[in-house]
Amino acid sequence: MAKDIDDLPKNAANYTALTPLWFLERAATVHPTRVSLLHGSVKYSWRETYQRCRRLASALNNHSVGLGSTGDLSSMTNLKVAVIAPNIPASYEAHFAIPMAGAVINPVNIRLNAQTIAFLLGHSKSSVVMVDQESFTLAEEALKILAESQNPFKPSLLVVIGDRNCDPKTLNYALNRGAIDYEKLLESGDPEFAWKPPEDEWQSIALNYTSGTTSSPKGVVLSHRGAYLMSMSNPIVWGISEGAIYLWTLPMFHCNGWCFTWTLAALCGTNICLRQVTAKAVYSAIAKDGVTHFCAAPVVLNAIVNAPKKDAILPLPRLVHVMTAGAAPPPSVLFSMSEKGFRVTHTYGLSETYGPSTVCAWKPEWDSEPPIKQARLNARQGVRYVGLEGLDVVDPKSMKPVPADGTTMGEIVMRGNVVMKGYLKNPKANEETFANGWFHSGDLAVKHPDGYIEIKDRSKDIIISGGENISSVEVENVMYTHPAILEVSVVARPDERWGESPCAFVTLKPEVDASNEQQLAQDIMKFCKENMPSYWVPKSVLFGPLPKTATGKIQKHLLRSKVKEMGPVKASKL
Amino acid sequence: MAKDIDDLPKNAANYTALTPLWFLERAATVHPTRVSLLHGSVKYSWRETYQRCRRLASALNNHSVGLGSTGDLSSMTNLKVAVIAPNIPASYEAHFAIPMAGAVINPVNIRLNAQTIAFLLGHSKSSVVMVDQESFTLAEEALKILAESQNPFKPSLLVVIGDRNCDPKTLNYALNRGAIDYEKLLESGDPEFAWKPPEDEWQSIALNYTSGTTSSPKGVVLSHRGAYLMSMSNPIVWGISEGAIYLWTLPMFHCNGWCFTWTLAALCGTNICLRQVTAKAVYSAIAKDGVTHFCAAPVVLNAIVNAPKKDAILPLPRLVHVMTAGAAPPPSVLFSMSEKGFRVTHTYGLSETYGPSTVCAWKPEWDSEPPIKQARLNARQGVRYVGLEGLDVVDPKSMKPVPADGTTMGEIVMRGNVVMKGYLKNPKANEETFANGWFHSGDLAVKHPDGYIEIKDRSKDIIISGGENISSVEVENVMYTHPAILEVSVVARPDERWGESPCAFVTLKPEVDASNEQQLAQDIMKFCKENMPSYWVPKSVLFGPLPKTATGKIQKHLLRSKVKEMGPVKASKL
Repeated sequence: MAKDIDDLPKNAANYTALTPLWFLERAATVHPTRVSLLHGSVKYSWRETYQRCRRLASALNNHSVGLGSTGDLSSMTNLKVAVIAPNIPASYEAHFAIPMAGAVINPVNIRLNAQTIAFLLGHSKSSVVMVDQESFTLAEEALKILAESQNPFKPSLLVVIGDRNCDPKTLNYALNRGAIDYEKLLESGDPEFAWKPPEDEWQSIALNYTSGTTSSPKGVVLSHRGAYLMSMSNPIVWGISEGAIYLWTLPMFHCNGWCFTWTLAALCGTNICLRQVTAKAVYSAIAKDGVTHFCAAPVVLNAIVNAPKKDAILPLPRLVHVMTAGAAPPPSVLFSMSEKGFRVTHTYGLSETYGPSTVCAWKPEWDSEPPIKQARLNARQGVRYVGLEGLDVVDPKSMKPVPADGTTMGEIVMRGNVVMKGYLKNPKANEETFANGWFHSGDLAVKHPDGYIEIKDRSKDIIISGGENISSVEVENVMYTHPAILEVSVVARPDERWGESPCAFVTLKPEVDASNEQQLAQDIMKFCKENMPSYWVPKSVLFGPLPKTATGKIQKHLLRSKVKEMGPVKASKL
Repeated sequence: MAKDIDDLPKNAANYTALTPLWFLERAATVHPTRVSLLHGSVKYSWRETYQRCRRLASALNNHSVGLGSTGDLSSMTNLKVAVIAPNIPASYEAHFAIPMAGAVINPVNIRLNAQTIAFLLGHSKSSVVMVDQESFTLAEEALKILAESQNPFKPSLLVVIGDRNCDPKTLNYALNRGAIDYEKLLESGDPEFAWKPPEDEWQSIALNYTSGTTSSPKGVVLSHRGAYLMSMSNPIVWGISEGAIYLWTLPMFHCNGWCFTWTLAALCGTNICLRQVTAKAVYSAIAKDGVTHFCAAPVVLNAIVNAPKKDAILPLPRLVHVMTAGAAPPPSVLFSMSEKGFRVTHTYGLSETYGPSTVCAWKPEWDSEPPIKQARLNARQGVRYVGLEGLDVVDPKSMKPVPADGTTMGEIVMRGNVVMKGYLKNPKANEETFANGWFHSGDLAVKHPDGYIEIKDRSKDIIISGGENISSVEVENVMYTHPAILEVSVVARPDERWGESPCAFVTLKPEVDASNEQQLAQDIMKFCKENMPSYWVPKSVLFGPLPKTATGKIQKHLLRSKVKEMGPVKASKL
């Protein structure tokens, strides 16, 4: 450090590690009786949530002390606790209690298969596994696969989380198989447990595996510091304020719910849990629970705008704010959401950046634009998030920023305090991803003259046809405006003449007569020809449901495999 | 640091020093054309503000490089720049430009006398002094005193800030005396200056001298880290959001405007400057500039609610949010503000805590209380600010928290990341103030059963009468409800029988007939007897204007001196 104006060192009064854990203690002090969590008939106040978290932290601490003496752990900070559960109160509690015990939370996507979960548990070496009763057999299968693997690892504690909204059979099954009851574990803990903040704010708070659109999941490690800073950034960017009523549509196991788990405690807000996300459940929570805000991937927005009339409770009883990210939202979906009275804030980010890295900050001058233009402006990924210190679109080789011309593509790179510590046990990936002092997102974008960035594709999703780059996202955005299309995904298909050409996978709206697929495909291709450059037009349109990850991302790699099986587009076909 | 789950060190992509300076760069990118600053006919956009700040940073950097070579400075981080100016654009720019140059801003209260300013400049060794044209002769006098002092120190650069809203004579005078014109200095700087964040976030950003209610001002040193964290905390607590239109009633030289200088850049909001704070000017800015938020000491609120009808533009065109702190606001003033349509958020803090440390967080259940009870609830100092990790009311000897009984008094102590680095060159004061790992505020408070704290007095303002503690604030709060009283301050007067007894200094409302002071004093004392314990009742009531600091705090030490001159209350008088 350069010489400063005076020698005034850090001391116990003016410096402590940044951690979002204080938010919970504060919420319990400021609003002890306000509802913290609502889940069906289960309701907790912030005082209760704090007590329950201290109990769990205490119980985990007791457990790890036992482990420590057997040499299984070198210290608490080496303890990883896997949580395999949907958006239920225990998932929320885990985000505080586990780090309060000095351990690291490893939230696991419940829609992964047993094989993948086995890999995750083995890779993370999660000593404690907490499982929702409905996911218990899945976890059991994963643990069996793990035990039989080449490098067997056995968690020392298996906990089952009961949910009175579920069939007691699955809970009893788990208890009979020797799992510890979550509530019993809590009872064994001290509600006054004197938890400590981390010694160093760089200490890890969470280990989130990437959702696996690529073959092997990577373990994204986040710090207390980063989690704190992201939690504080969310409200400033979104305008979500003190006492907000937040609906958990976004899974908490997806990047800790973009850090909104911790943000809600900073806001002393109310968390409305949702075991299963359907348009009906979303509308119902808005109507009866006073929901003011929720986050969701575009696929959920699509379901909301296309909900059957009987499920959609409209008009909305109040303005509902929605943050969307996870994939580029088609302008048509943004337009329909806006028409229904939702105010959508579009953000973009990755697990590696604690959630959102950009926000499409709404400009007052857009207010006077026609709605469809508004939707197009808002479909861009936007500008840097307030907690992120650097973001640019660069030529990945020279690292030179692309011109702000709206056409030159480059890679989105980030740097700053809300970029992950790195991937767990993966030095090669870390070296690549942090090359040249920036985090490399792998996403391709342009920069518009107004400074807003727009994603054109994932590096690997771009279609190169006759030497021209085609953005699969742009082709999809046009196709989404076709009245028969509910969902569409476009991937590269090998092409004898052009190298690659676009191939579209389409799910039709329920009301569409799908008896003549050939005719429909012709209609859609005609529509494409009229609305996009000819070399963008898909050479084939296929119908059926789209494969998705647990977080609703379309699994393009599966579509690509399908396309490979189909073989290349023949030159003669042209 | 304890062993962590993996060895993932900080690198250029995932770690950088926290500093509020990025907010400005971001505002210029996100909202380049939005109005950043409005000051009479002067208007800047965020792009312009950023360019002007880079110019100033560059110019200061050029200057300091010169200084470095003469051995005057060991490094930029040793450069202090004093700013003697009211709430004008240059004061705002200085809060970014000076730290962008790697230097430390030393904002000076323009209402201090030359003697005190001489002390400040000498103590801080501010190499550069920037002065508003209207304060130039004051600064000149201070520099003369400094030059003639025992330890003469001479700033190497004197800059005068012109204001086209002022008489050009004072500007010309300064220029003729050799001061550099602020705009000329900016012109010499590079608008593309490649500023750097601090190497270490602990580096100092500001040096704020305490307002001097006690004899010798102390230099409060703040870090980039703390300034960043406070800037991010303000919006969460207050609900001030993106694009807010903020009126500068609170002086920026008072604790950097409680860090709202930097908060406004994080919000990409609009700053409305105000050279002179009057109720008329406040109402006018609300009416014509779209003001949504302002901060002000209770004395300003008092002026607003007591403004003559011709100055008050009512009803308000929109809900206006007010944050008040700096002294305990009398419930009667809060009540009147609320009646007029202002929503007042009451906070409490010190220069040593970057501004607010507590907020009287409004509870929905208060909505149904009668307005006067609401005002009383809201007059309490409240609960911990979100960015502060520790706050309590303790017995200053045992450091044990007082019971939450609403009656046991203790000292307010704080700890966490928004507590100052320390006092400049004052190891003795630092030792005392940071004793036992807490910052000692010197303020006495009780803790209510709902966890909210309420200040009873500054340690030195408490009146000890016959062994009983009397809170001067509580006596004042009752007296403020008397219809003739505009302002009141109660101090201890030596008392032959009781040791001390309360003595009240009163300013009457303009419309009150003050011809018979004796009668009025009798009336007021009668009112007191009916509304407070008899031992609280002031033994003397004196009329006249109250001496105030530049930030509107009543200078009780001056009243105490006055009272000493009066001599003790005679035992016979009883």
